[in-house]
Amino acid sequence: MALAAEVAAVAGRLTTPIWRAKIHKSLSKNKHLANSRYVQLATVREDGRPANRTVVFRGFLSDDDDSLTFVTDSRSRKVQEVAANPAAEVAWYFPQTREQYRIAGNLVIVDSASADSALQQARTRTWSAMSDGGRQQFGWPQPGRPRAAEDPEAWNQPAPGSQDPPLDTFCLVVLRVEEVEQLLLRSNERFRYSRDVKQDGSMAWAEESINP
Amino acid sequence: MALAAEVAAVAGRLTTPIWRAKIHKSLSKNKHLANSRYVQLATVREDGRPANRTVVFRGFLSDDDDSLTFVTDSRSRKVQEVAANPAAEVAWYFPQTREQYRIAGNLVIVDSASADSALQQARTRTWSAMSDGGRQQFGWPQPGRPRAAEDPEAWNQPAPGSQDPPLDTFCLVVLRVEEVEQLLLRSNERFRYSRDVKQDGSMAWAEESINP
Repeated sequence: MALAAEVAAVAGRLTTPIWRAKIHKSLSKNKHLANSRYVQLATVREDGRPANRTVVFRGFLSDDDDSLTFVTDSRSRKVQEVAANPAAEVAWYFPQTREQYRIAGNLVIVDSASADSALQQARTRTWSAMSDGGRQQFGWPQPGRPRAAEDPEAWNQPAPGSQDPPLDTFCLVVLRVEEVEQLLLRSNERFRYSRDVKQDGSMAWAEESINP
Repeated sequence: MALAAEVAAVAGRLTTPIWRAKIHKSLSKNKHLANSRYVQLATVREDGRPANRTVVFRGFLSDDDDSLTFVTDSRSRKVQEVAANPAAEVAWYFPQTREQYRIAGNLVIVDSASADSALQQARTRTWSAMSDGGRQQFGWPQPGRPRAAEDPEAWNQPAPGSQDPPLDTFCLVVLRVEEVEQLLLRSNERFRYSRDVKQDGSMAWAEESINP
């Protein structure tokens, strides 16, 4: 790798992408709203129809990695769907600031068998950071199945502790970001951020102002 | 048609589907929130990737028709996408009552050339009910195109009046509903509503309680 490329790669990580800095700012201005971290995640089902559900944003993967993280149950339908088609788009609306982000990319599901040690550590870290109620749900009966009248005990298992290992059903969902759009309803501005890979192999985010 | 079928068909329209009645109740309980009518609409792009964006719910098509309605600009990317693949899923989160609805079905775009007179009337009715600011946007430069520095006049055309005919760019978006899921985060209940066509041809909505 040429020196220029190395410098650019390092510089790329010293500088937070504009869109990530904007999301941090939006989160800060909307933090009094309980649902400011709720986003809608769209994927494509195996029959080619879209699926859309609300999920909780669990933070960026790391200071150096701009992937968004969520959690899911290994028994949920979306795990199979993502295995067949990893493409996803998040819609994230911030009520206080009246902004929308659309974040497109590809999903990676990190389950108990994932061999990537950095992702496995992120999975454990996210598990530990969840509430007791959040961790307890991963011991519940299979999501989406007909609800059985019997066996109330199945819903009342004690929650695993934050230091207990994640249940096998617990998956980290990682969105590798390819493109971001921000729409500001107050000012009628709209910006698109896309990956710009330079001839030397370094990557930067290109910003474009587009019509709302 | 046998008498039993006629009675069932009529009864079907005298009775509002449970899921529609639930949405009315949720809208009522959340109406103090400015964004309670904002929903996320997922579709599939022509390259097979999902698209997801926030749109405003403009009401049910009529007392007798449970389709959801939205509006869009004929020049927006989703109009082409829907022509290729009409499948859609709405995610609708109500912050006050902590409920999510997922509403799956097929989209119909009603543009200025649509021949269906009932849908054309609905398009005009929706246009008239919009705010001046909402109607004005349909005269703006093409959405998604690079924003030109010149020509501030393009953004300042006076809004058409509520009694003026809809601009040609104005489209009504109709979601023909196939399946609905309601998730209640407070009580951890989840219900699925699906079309149940009986042997005599009449239709009813089947309700199923499923695991959250």
